[in-house]
Amino acid sequence: MFLSSALIISVLAGIIPAAHGGKVLVFPHDGSHWVNMRVLVEELHSRGHTVTVIRAADSWYISETSPHYNTVTVDIAGGANEDFFRLFVSEVIKIKRSKASAWARFALDMELKDKFFELHKKVCEVVTYILENKELIKSFQDAKYDAVLTDPANGGGVMLAHYLGLPLMFNARWTVHGEAHFAIAPSPLSYVPLPPSELTDQMTFFERVKNVVFYTMRMHLYKQIVGPHYSALTRRYFGPDEDYFSLFQAADLWLMRVDFVFEFPRPTMPNVVYMGGFQCKPAKPLPADLEEFVQSSGEHGVIIMSLGTLIGELPHDLADEIAAAFATLPQKVIWRYKGDRPATLGNNTLLVDWMPQNDLLGHPKIKIFVAHGGTNGVQEAIYHGVPIVGLPLIFDQRDNLFRIEVRGAGKIIDIFSMNEEIFFQGIQEVLNEPSYRMNMQRLSRLHRDQPMKPLDTALFWIEFVMRHKGAAHLRTESYRMPWYSFHSVDVMLFLGGAVLIILAIFAALIRWLCSMCLRRKS
Amino acid sequence: MFLSSALIISVLAGIIPAAHGGKVLVFPHDGSHWVNMRVLVEELHSRGHTVTVIRAADSWYISETSPHYNTVTVDIAGGANEDFFRLFVSEVIKIKRSKASAWARFALDMELKDKFFELHKKVCEVVTYILENKELIKSFQDAKYDAVLTDPANGGGVMLAHYLGLPLMFNARWTVHGEAHFAIAPSPLSYVPLPPSELTDQMTFFERVKNVVFYTMRMHLYKQIVGPHYSALTRRYFGPDEDYFSLFQAADLWLMRVDFVFEFPRPTMPNVVYMGGFQCKPAKPLPADLEEFVQSSGEHGVIIMSLGTLIGELPHDLADEIAAAFATLPQKVIWRYKGDRPATLGNNTLLVDWMPQNDLLGHPKIKIFVAHGGTNGVQEAIYHGVPIVGLPLIFDQRDNLFRIEVRGAGKIIDIFSMNEEIFFQGIQEVLNEPSYRMNMQRLSRLHRDQPMKPLDTALFWIEFVMRHKGAAHLRTESYRMPWYSFHSVDVMLFLGGAVLIILAIFAALIRWLCSMCLRRKS
Repeated sequence: MFLSSALIISVLAGIIPAAHGGKVLVFPHDGSHWVNMRVLVEELHSRGHTVTVIRAADSWYISETSPHYNTVTVDIAGGANEDFFRLFVSEVIKIKRSKASAWARFALDMELKDKFFELHKKVCEVVTYILENKELIKSFQDAKYDAVLTDPANGGGVMLAHYLGLPLMFNARWTVHGEAHFAIAPSPLSYVPLPPSELTDQMTFFERVKNVVFYTMRMHLYKQIVGPHYSALTRRYFGPDEDYFSLFQAADLWLMRVDFVFEFPRPTMPNVVYMGGFQCKPAKPLPADLEEFVQSSGEHGVIIMSLGTLIGELPHDLADEIAAAFATLPQKVIWRYKGDRPATLGNNTLLVDWMPQNDLLGHPKIKIFVAHGGTNGVQEAIYHGVPIVGLPLIFDQRDNLFRIEVRGAGKIIDIFSMNEEIFFQGIQEVLNEPSYRMNMQRLSRLHRDQPMKPLDTALFWIEFVMRHKGAAHLRTESYRMPWYSFHSVDVMLFLGGAVLIILAIFAALIRWLCSMCLRRKS
Repeated sequence: MFLSSALIISVLAGIIPAAHGGKVLVFPHDGSHWVNMRVLVEELHSRGHTVTVIRAADSWYISETSPHYNTVTVDIAGGANEDFFRLFVSEVIKIKRSKASAWARFALDMELKDKFFELHKKVCEVVTYILENKELIKSFQDAKYDAVLTDPANGGGVMLAHYLGLPLMFNARWTVHGEAHFAIAPSPLSYVPLPPSELTDQMTFFERVKNVVFYTMRMHLYKQIVGPHYSALTRRYFGPDEDYFSLFQAADLWLMRVDFVFEFPRPTMPNVVYMGGFQCKPAKPLPADLEEFVQSSGEHGVIIMSLGTLIGELPHDLADEIAAAFATLPQKVIWRYKGDRPATLGNNTLLVDWMPQNDLLGHPKIKIFVAHGGTNGVQEAIYHGVPIVGLPLIFDQRDNLFRIEVRGAGKIIDIFSMNEEIFFQGIQEVLNEPSYRMNMQRLSRLHRDQPMKPLDTALFWIEFVMRHKGAAHLRTESYRMPWYSFHSVDVMLFLGGAVLIILAIFAALIRWLCSMCLRRKS
């Protein structure tokens, strides 16, 4: 697994003066997950902590230099680069739009599986590279970090924290094998839907059947994709008795990027802290030209559209349908779009390369957010109370938007089968039916009514773990039990056996007494 | 069940001017539980809310007049009066001390069961009285309360909240059928010990067997003691389809009087808020005479002893053993004791009727707290970091102290079999072995290191429920499912059946093919 060509390490430590606070080692998950991690990293830095971020040489999102953190660049391909996702997503759109055969769709799923298999393999190569590099690992040991902060979407940080004997903190929504709660909290499948199953916490019988089947399939997939890599690494560095999943479950802190305005109520654990919407802030004033454009909308207001950092452009025909629908609206539209200018684009629509999404969402003129359904965008829409027209594409996006739709605060449109008319009708419905806005505003009020801001809560618990060298008193150690003990199977067999033996003795006794009676009679 | 002699209602409403805040109806649990509830009631009042407390005419702890709350006195015997517990507890001590036969101990358990049976019967009489009294219930409806706050150690508040259609909030540690978490959160018996089983979260095989057996017995006991009363009332007022336990589980908020410094880590739910130690405050200066006595202890320091509000006195011989042990110590002793002066009392021991327990625990001269193990006292000892010598008597006391003992912050002595020598040795051990104090101080640091004070957290969520008319988004509705759906038994049977049918068809097909082949051959 070890890439012999990967030789150069660039350690940019010591650029930022040592803070009065603590020292945190960050093993992030590259791609859009870094957008979340960066919020925590910058906040840690602003509170006087020194943060060191490990990045691969071909990192897509993580800059090598920053005023907020030091970097350790491992000169090895991490795999999570632009090509990995962007090309794949446009492939997905093309195939799904073209009403491809079931076989083409299946091939696509297999391709995705292979891509993830490769991605986790690369992460393990990065970890191996670090653990085998005596100089680098000694520099980590000498640095005396207080804790490791990682995104459990890959297992690299888990390995590193265990190797260095440091407290482990997760910035989590997904783990390597699915929604993060399923790895740490009891998740009764009767009322806890496994994303992305598009189910709620109130399921019919057949929905519950689907949830169980879906769960079984996901667990199988996890074993195929992730198991081999991390298990091999665990055996290699921590011996045959150590189990990767147990190392993972031993994390001190799970900072979840959701809250229960977004997520359905479900069991949780004492070391799970909810920080959903931690990246949201009050809107700042818009740049003058954008403010002017927004104000020019008059009473009709503005619609904004963005499909996230991953989807800069769309197939031409699809972009044309969207642009044509926008063109017929009295509203102004701001559309973050990097592709060629659609032929049907109306005068009311402004194409931009980038937009200050948070500041726009907080602007009183904004009527609707047309979004792909990434967790960040959905949480920002909740924070600002702007109803969503959702165009989910891949991953958890449909499930995220589904949580908004079932609360009546948004509407999902199937981007793969939609045309101008369908898109137009969807926009019209969310614009004209006041319940969408009212419901989203209600979610916003609930979300904002917390004892502390989510980011402050997150930082409190990160610093708690640093102060106390972990959070052992909040963390169950039940993961150390074998499965048959954890599920009380051994106890049930024992008690069942005991009852059977007692019954058998009782039956034998009765039989013996009867036979004695019969013998005496005869 | 309705006592026809109970006729007079004394409604002391309107004494306190209507506050700018909300209105809370409180249905408390009489006895020492009121000590906790009063803290919340007084804090609600200090924040400008109007609180109305329902009390029985023979209430033991709840005064009819208070500057902090209005009362509605239902002129019916509530049953939880002084006689109920105090006489019973001295009976327990007598029987357990006398090395009584197993039969006598069993009779005692049955007596306790009968007492609880009676207590819940009386609570239901109070509820019936209120619901049947048109004038009273109309006054409740007209008052437009924002929510009902109750202690789920009885089910009265649950009934009343459902009848009035009001949000329901629990100030909880025990419900009518055991530790409160077991009614609302998943509680895997492999690592969640059911109090009072005297088990930790790390159990051997036979301890897990004990936990399962204990749980089964408790559930049976609950059905015997509580089921009939509340179920009958539920059917009577809410129809045959309504289930008491579901009404109970529908509570919006569970304010738990524990935290995870005291309790073992275990699954929880989004609407469970931990406020353990909410009653604790920094120590105020002692009265001059007490301060003088404390200072006179010099370097040796002071031991304080209190067995709670329930146990004012002890059998003479037992008090003599304790006093004799104290007399041989170089420390000064402050002992809250209402009985006759023990013959062996030393000059170093001060008997008091009442003591400012919180202020003493916070005094630097205090070395040890000799306590019975009520949750309040244990939490105060944690808050102030004072190690405990525990003399548990009844109820959850031994389990509470056990949580301190397994963390090395205290020692339990069996009061029923101890003598002067055993008590003396126990005190000496906790005094001289520094780990007891160090461990308790560590618990204290962890307990105090919270983002908000527990009382502020509790009040935030109470006011949240009042503001939003409940907390539906934090509350699972899975309790509405039948047990076989909740535990996915129906789904498993369905999937198992489907697999069997597919296998059967497959087997039949193979058999048919084989027979065809054989026929062709022949």
